[in-house]
Amino acid sequence: MIDGFHDECGVAAVYGNSEASNHVYLSLYAFQHRGQESAGIASCFPGERFTSHRGRGLVSEVFDEKKLSELKGSIAIGHNRYSTSGKAILENAQPFSIEYARGRLSLAHNGNLVNSHHLRRELEQKGAIFRTTNDSEVLLHLIAHNRHDTFIDVLKSVFSRVRGAYSIVMTDSERVYGMRDPLGIRPLILGELEEGLVLVSESCALDLMGASFVREVNPGELIVIDGKGYESIELLPVPGNTAHCIFEFIYFARPDSYQFGSYVHDVRKELGRTLAREDSTEADVVIPVPDSGIVPTLGYSQESGVPFEMGLIRNHYVGRTFIEPRQSIRHFGVKIKLNPVRSIIEGKRVIVIDDSIVRGTTSRKIIKMIRDCGAKEVHMRIAAPPTICPCFYGVDTPTRTELIAHNHTLDQIRTYITADTLQYLSHEGMFASAKGGKEMFCSACFDGDYPVPFDEHCHMQD
Amino acid sequence: MIDGFHDECGVAAVYGNSEASNHVYLSLYAFQHRGQESAGIASCFPGERFTSHRGRGLVSEVFDEKKLSELKGSIAIGHNRYSTSGKAILENAQPFSIEYARGRLSLAHNGNLVNSHHLRRELEQKGAIFRTTNDSEVLLHLIAHNRHDTFIDVLKSVFSRVRGAYSIVMTDSERVYGMRDPLGIRPLILGELEEGLVLVSESCALDLMGASFVREVNPGELIVIDGKGYESIELLPVPGNTAHCIFEFIYFARPDSYQFGSYVHDVRKELGRTLAREDSTEADVVIPVPDSGIVPTLGYSQESGVPFEMGLIRNHYVGRTFIEPRQSIRHFGVKIKLNPVRSIIEGKRVIVIDDSIVRGTTSRKIIKMIRDCGAKEVHMRIAAPPTICPCFYGVDTPTRTELIAHNHTLDQIRTYITADTLQYLSHEGMFASAKGGKEMFCSACFDGDYPVPFDEHCHMQD
Amino acid sequence: MIDGFHDECGVAAVYGNSEASNHVYLSLYAFQHRGQESAGIASCFPGERFTSHRGRGLVSEVFDEKKLSELKGSIAIGHNRYSTSGKAILENAQPFSIEYARGRLSLAHNGNLVNSHHLRRELEQKGAIFRTTNDSEVLLHLIAHNRHDTFIDVLKSVFSRVRGAYSIVMTDSERVYGMRDPLGIRPLILGELEEGLVLVSESCALDLMGASFVREVNPGELIVIDGKGYESIELLPVPGNTAHCIFEFIYFARPDSYQFGSYVHDVRKELGRTLAREDSTEADVVIPVPDSGIVPTLGYSQESGVPFEMGLIRNHYVGRTFIEPRQSIRHFGVKIKLNPVRSIIEGKRVIVIDDSIVRGTTSRKIIKMIRDCGAKEVHMRIAAPPTICPCFYGVDTPTRTELIAHNHTLDQIRTYITADTLQYLSHEGMFASAKGGKEMFCSACFDGDYPVPFDEHCHMQD
Amino acid sequence: MIDGFHDECGVAAVYGNSEASNHVYLSLYAFQHRGQESAGIASCFPGERFTSHRGRGLVSEVFDEKKLSELKGSIAIGHNRYSTSGKAILENAQPFSIEYARGRLSLAHNGNLVNSHHLRRELEQKGAIFRTTNDSEVLLHLIAHNRHDTFIDVLKSVFSRVRGAYSIVMTDSERVYGMRDPLGIRPLILGELEEGLVLVSESCALDLMGASFVREVNPGELIVIDGKGYESIELLPVPGNTAHCIFEFIYFARPDSYQFGSYVHDVRKELGRTLAREDSTEADVVIPVPDSGIVPTLGYSQESGVPFEMGLIRNHYVGRTFIEPRQSIRHFGVKIKLNPVRSIIEGKRVIVIDDSIVRGTTSRKIIKMIRDCGAKEVHMRIAAPPTICPCFYGVDTPTRTELIAHNHTLDQIRTYITADTLQYLSHEGMFASAKGGKEMFCSACFDGDYPVPFDEHCHMQD
Repeated sequence: MIDGFHDECGVAAVYGNSEASNHVYLSLYAFQHRGQESAGIASCFPGERFTSHRGRGLVSEVFDEKKLSELKGSIAIGHNRYSTSGKAILENAQPFSIEYARGRLSLAHNGNLVNSHHLRRELEQKGAIFRTTNDSEVLLHLIAHNRHDTFIDVLKSVFSRVRGAYSIVMTDSERVYGMRDPLGIRPLILGELEEGLVLVSESCALDLMGASFVREVNPGELIVIDGKGYESIELLPVPGNTAHCIFEFIYFARPDSYQFGSYVHDVRKELGRTLAREDSTEADVVIPVPDSGIVPTLGYSQESGVPFEMGLIRNHYVGRTFIEPRQSIRHFGVKIKLNPVRSIIEGKRVIVIDDSIVRGTTSRKIIKMIRDCGAKEVHMRIAAPPTICPCFYGVDTPTRTELIAHNHTLDQIRTYITADTLQYLSHEGMFASAKGGKEMFCSACFDGDYPVPFDEHCHMQD
Repeated sequence: MIDGFHDECGVAAVYGNSEASNHVYLSLYAFQHRGQESAGIASCFPGERFTSHRGRGLVSEVFDEKKLSELKGSIAIGHNRYSTSGKAILENAQPFSIEYARGRLSLAHNGNLVNSHHLRRELEQKGAIFRTTNDSEVLLHLIAHNRHDTFIDVLKSVFSRVRGAYSIVMTDSERVYGMRDPLGIRPLILGELEEGLVLVSESCALDLMGASFVREVNPGELIVIDGKGYESIELLPVPGNTAHCIFEFIYFARPDSYQFGSYVHDVRKELGRTLAREDSTEADVVIPVPDSGIVPTLGYSQESGVPFEMGLIRNHYVGRTFIEPRQSIRHFGVKIKLNPVRSIIEGKRVIVIDDSIVRGTTSRKIIKMIRDCGAKEVHMRIAAPPTICPCFYGVDTPTRTELIAHNHTLDQIRTYITADTLQYLSHEGMFASAKGGKEMFCSACFDGDYPVPFDEHCHMQD
Repeated sequence: MIDGFHDECGVAAVYGNSEASNHVYLSLYAFQHRGQESAGIASCFPGERFTSHRGRGLVSEVFDEKKLSELKGSIAIGHNRYSTSGKAILENAQPFSIEYARGRLSLAHNGNLVNSHHLRRELEQKGAIFRTTNDSEVLLHLIAHNRHDTFIDVLKSVFSRVRGAYSIVMTDSERVYGMRDPLGIRPLILGELEEGLVLVSESCALDLMGASFVREVNPGELIVIDGKGYESIELLPVPGNTAHCIFEFIYFARPDSYQFGSYVHDVRKELGRTLAREDSTEADVVIPVPDSGIVPTLGYSQESGVPFEMGLIRNHYVGRTFIEPRQSIRHFGVKIKLNPVRSIIEGKRVIVIDDSIVRGTTSRKIIKMIRDCGAKEVHMRIAAPPTICPCFYGVDTPTRTELIAHNHTLDQIRTYITADTLQYLSHEGMFASAKGGKEMFCSACFDGDYPVPFDEHCHMQD
Repeated sequence: MIDGFHDECGVAAVYGNSEASNHVYLSLYAFQHRGQESAGIASCFPGERFTSHRGRGLVSEVFDEKKLSELKGSIAIGHNRYSTSGKAILENAQPFSIEYARGRLSLAHNGNLVNSHHLRRELEQKGAIFRTTNDSEVLLHLIAHNRHDTFIDVLKSVFSRVRGAYSIVMTDSERVYGMRDPLGIRPLILGELEEGLVLVSESCALDLMGASFVREVNPGELIVIDGKGYESIELLPVPGNTAHCIFEFIYFARPDSYQFGSYVHDVRKELGRTLAREDSTEADVVIPVPDSGIVPTLGYSQESGVPFEMGLIRNHYVGRTFIEPRQSIRHFGVKIKLNPVRSIIEGKRVIVIDDSIVRGTTSRKIIKMIRDCGAKEVHMRIAAPPTICPCFYGVDTPTRTELIAHNHTLDQIRTYITADTLQYLSHEGMFASAKGGKEMFCSACFDGDYPVPFDEHCHMQD
């Protein structure tokens, strides 16, 4: 039972570097937090066949020196994946590589198409066969069925039919392509190596590779990279607004990444400052739920003057196979990850700050933990508004009814999580912190205003 | 460097048994010799989704109790695969399962299509994308693109376009289908369990499952199995002749299997008897190259009166990762598999019988081994005619020029392998032993008469 | 090349709980930071044979549900191990279980004996054979060779001969024993479960198990646990002073643990406060080297008023098999673990706080990283005095000459690490922060005053 | 439930070869049949430390290229192990390597000591600790406790105290030692490489290594190998008789091995011939239970004139994890290994020859299988006398009461296995076939005359 929002993917591509797959590996490693269930890399020499390896687990588990050294060539693309579905993990692992009428194609996708169900039915009527439940397969079929002359026209035509969130890297073994949906929902960054160009989901990957930041790929833009450099093509016309996923700022992205025109750290800090400005609780100490709560809590502390302390210690050795005792000890839940520091909490009025309350079960356990350490008061603060709607643009969220804020009042939630007080950041506060408004961000999970319309009943979210 | 012919697949299907996948597992295990590189099973309850597991290695390595118990349902199909291509083994592993306009399909294929290259090009022009180099993917695309009303008509239409060798099992999650090409090149057997019906590549699988033999699926026949039993449909018109792969008798099939109207053991024994009749060499002992040479050598011994001895001992613990010493010891080759018994060989005139000489390197090493044990004379006898042509119907063979008998005289081969004398079975002897003639068998590897024409330059043999 | 100090072990024991091994597993998991190279558990029913499992890797990798469920019984002891020696990891993994004249014994050891080399030679002269280079084997031999009547007298006699640091848990399958050296160098805590008693290296394990803290095992004390509760026995006479490892406070222990009479967090915070008091650098921001630097940096910030920021982000997905690119990218070092946040650092006067400088290479890389982000000044502060001597009491440290502070002046170190200024905490400041002095702590790594004398040339440190 | 006798070990040692561990690997591989549960190799350069690797599984699974390449040095010893005890397999895996007063020692042992229980108690009284239940640990302790001046005198003294069966290879990192008990119960062969000398359990290993056969190590002999060649030392006085394990001829050894003065094949063939001479059953066909039954069946056929046929086909892909179906199919037993050939058996009077009947369950299933194929008569013949007593000299056998021949008459056994007739080889026939008598062989499993006396109640057989 997941009590959180989970990003579904990170993508990376390198063109024109003799260690292309090695750099893609570094990228996947840098944004491992975007997907920990599978990883994959496909590489090639220009004009030659793809070699690829995909596997379950962390990047450092999927690839060893031998496997990485087999991924030869100056072109490589890669993918990290998070998935809730326990099944067919390997089949769904990306990149997807195909041969078709026009030649070869390998593709990695971060996002979710809201009309893929419809497109898939249509493609099936034309004879398409599907081996996965993955959007990427729909895209590849659309490309293969398209009759336009040039590949660029094919892409323009295909993506004009596709609706949803996507940041995609792709190679036909000659060039590398990067494209982003017209609202720029998911991030995609262009960088430059000493030798060659790169596309990555998060800028922290550039730092690890030693690449310099060039710019963000624009919404609706197609970047084509070949031996002569990169070319910018208008893939699709863009509306006046954008719909950058504001949750990237709140939780997904690493604080050291830059995206949507800001440093993630700065926005996250400002979320905490603004939360403090909207709050006037008297307290002895403010503590974060680590790690995501640390930066907003610092902001809160600096703004409010309530001392910041590391009142909860996180065990970073949490593996995927923690075994709970059978009988005597129960309901471990958050305990295997977090442990409070008694001397910080005992006898204190404690403000605890998290980025969200999803189902409420985690917050409830954290507060119990803090109370058991002798806190006099526990005030829960969330550095974002209540999450009331699921995401259909590539984030794995519980269903609407599982979101506690969807059908409970603030006071009901407070009672459930046993906090003395509970306060969320205001919508205005959130937008102000992110230096934009509804015309710039997708905040559907907070307000239900979905920037790309869809038929919720038949959407396919794998 | 493979010095031998290798079958590429074994297939199995079970309908209407509460332990369907378990029985398919037993079948794959029984004909593990047909393919040791990967194994896979897909299963379902009638009308429901497939669960599947495919992996590299032997059946007993790919499946454990947990994995097998997850393959629930009363319908299951499975596949063993041998492949020379070291790459993409897992991607090419079968069964292949898809969703398409008509619903679901899972397919396992033994054989090789000689016009798949052409069909694939045609399908690509229609927008098909290919993720493997496998014939089965071509078949699935053909089915998905076909516009006939009923599934049976689709199959008739699709297989009328397909040329080559195929024994196929398939399920749409409602029924199980088994079909065989019009010449009956590869075997396919129908059997009956106490509960349910089965289709298997070799009858030895029926023995292990405790199933009774019903009959061979006929060339060009489509067997449809559902809750009411099985129905026979003429998939394709059949010519007067058949083209059963005679090499199945000579090497591939297990001696305890029944196929093409005979027990494999009986034909193999008769090959040895006939070889003896065509020979008049005086010798002290006749020894087989184990294991495949044992039965023909027994026949030779019984016919000729030359005493049969187990002069070569086979080490059955040969793993896939035998490590050869680096410097001092070289050219292990056959030594890790076979070791001669000095007391049988020393001072003797030895006849050694094998089923074929492919490149000649193995025979040369075996004869050296026998001579080093003090044999007075070494006479090599092959219980089949010279193999002069590659197979394009699902057997993995070296190229034409690598076949020593393709471009060398009998005496040149004899000199190369350092035998005192060398004799092959005659073509007539082979056909007589198999109780049929060229109108019944495909003997293309021995005579180049390919029963299904093809364009050798563009055929796709994965 | 390790640039740090590493603790070598954590131990745990449970008596009288129906899920004894499960609780030991939780303990090892809670103090996984004390040793990540191997883990082991031995368990038994009172008076019966031990079952044990030991393996390489993290606790969550070594044990799965099946293995843990096989470790039956109401008594269990366990061990985490860190080791620099790449060899014989499994052979050296603890607990060590033996049979000998008196019956059975299983032992897990945290610490290091400084006279084990000498004892081992003596035991060898008596006929003892050694299969490992481990102190624990020496202890077991000493026990087996000892001729005293009662087991308690044996232990008194044996440990009177042993010199060094040790916190040991042990079981003879009837009782559980816990003992600590007379100076109390390594920690050992007694706790109480709803059902049964426990001994653990760190109190954070009690929190995870849901056990209550009873007290620290005293220096020189032997705790004997059986069905009637626990008994305290004076194992050895204790001197007036203690020699608690002060580095446990500085780095090893988790901040949420309690030991040597204080909460680790509180001491660590005070180290930062004191550091600030001894410093008067003007700066715009103070940032920690995470994770160990966070708490002292908070203290520094609170005392000095310089704003605390998370200027370095740590990647927690660092695996054991990170693959560095071959050519173009070099000297990754700290980069795979840490990445700076440009918006915090750019144009700022930065104080960066770490717990120690060992070889200097890591600090040098961190400072380069910070400068590359545009810091105006970089001031390195260490929340402890310079580490000038190796540890011989169970901590894995570089040799004397590898310690940069051993043979370089402050200014030389500053130049090497390229800091604008460098300042360490004073010895007085450290002791004051830990609320004790040289009569309470071992500070040998900072001053070379070794509380237990030894012959450095022949000591055995595995 | 094991229905058979199992040898417990194979040993190998190489001195003076630059690829010593590689040659030991080849040896272990060649006599993999002597033990499939674990394998280990220890190697060293003269006078230096041992490197060793031991693991569960087949030689080809335990060692890969990397592991083997780490086992450097010109000296190596190795061990294959079979063990019934499911526990502590890895702890008990050999070679055992120790350090002790005299230096280093690594030892591998094939056999079983009948007084090890007694010796162990005695050693424990002297302070020895035991980590395994293995005889080899007893031997190492005896050596370490022995006070004689020279190592040769130590060995003489130690082995004069040890009773039982042993063929041992050992190295002190300077020399390689090979020794055999005074009755020569287990085999041990000396061979010569182009570079260096070798000791192996079976001569088939010499063939694979390309080593020449020098001679068998004599009973009671100690071979010491160093840079100058090998020296023979009388380890112990030998009696007039020997007690070579006759079951090595009947079942354990490979037919291509030479031991106890004969080729295994020749003895095994003669067992069949003699069996035929003692029999006068009329039959249409005689078939072996493969593989061990093949050679005696050939002998039987040649002597009797009853035609030899391969009536039972063995599946050599049997893995260690065959999964039996849960409900519908039961009692697989022998079926996964053997399948009859109907055309050989149907309507025939069949003689089936095996090497032994242990519990009777396997024979019963084989006969049922043959009858189900339509055999008119089934006559079971055993190419050895009834096995009525367990072995205490290194062979893993069921207990006395589990041996069907121990407490059942010939007719009772015949009835149980459902044979039409049953006949064993006579004791005289067995000895005559092996060209010796009771003064040469240990035939205790057939007659209960144990050549080395022991106290059955307290013997330790691990």
